[in-house]
Amino acid sequence: MPSYHLSDKFAALADPTRRAILARLALGETSVTELAEPFSMSMPAVSKHLKVLERAGLIARGREAQWRPCRIELGALKDVDDWLEEYRRLWEDRLDRLEVYLSELQAKESKGKERNKKPRRRKK
Amino acid sequence: MPSYHLSDKFAALADPTRRAILARLALGETSVTELAEPFSMSMPAVSKHLKVLERAGLIARGREAQWRPCRIELGALKDVDDWLEEYRRLWEDRLDRLEVYLSELQAKESKGKERNKKPRRRKK
Repeated sequence: MPSYHLSDKFAALADPTRRAILARLALGETSVTELAEPFSMSMPAVSKHLKVLERAGLIARGREAQWRPCRIELGALKDVDDWLEEYRRLWEDRLDRLEVYLSELQAKESKGKERNKKPRRRKK
Repeated sequence: MPSYHLSDKFAALADPTRRAILARLALGETSVTELAEPFSMSMPAVSKHLKVLERAGLIARGREAQWRPCRIELGALKDVDDWLEEYRRLWEDRLDRLEVYLSELQAKESKGKERNKKPRRRKK
């Protein structure tokens, strides 16, 4: 996947209206008119957003004469997910290391407590 | 997480140089001078990219006098990942349904073959 495609995808996602359009399309394909309704936007404004999403490959539009239904292209989001994969591994590694560190810290603390307890017991 | 923050993140990621800077910083924190080297870019150009990444919360810069090391802020990418989560579930569901469909298809096909075989055997 060439990086300019990925750039198009990120750019398309950098707008709350376009993300809302995707969220709507995730529920099922729909016509542009239906899509425009909840956004209280003009049809040309919605069409502009749809073009950006379409160029980025995030949506596809049917070729059925009058009714050109829009649908989400989940595969395109998979590319974004693939890009994230490396970083996800990084933060999971960090969380794992943090967990190890915390459990070591806890183990040391409870050992310390035991050591502090034992002499007292021996004194009895 | 307000959506304009997420928009800033997506906008910051919509540039191959900025993604390359993040990939470099994933290896460890570094100075701006070191960071600029492989990109054969002017320092002001690199600084501009860093500002975009910093505003989006994707990197942070140290406050150590001369040397202001940059480091990646993995938590900010986690927000992008959280946004993707819903869609990831969708495509995984679709893949699962596709798998079920294919295995049903395969089962039907092998049953069909058996049915075609049996009458021949009976004729013998």
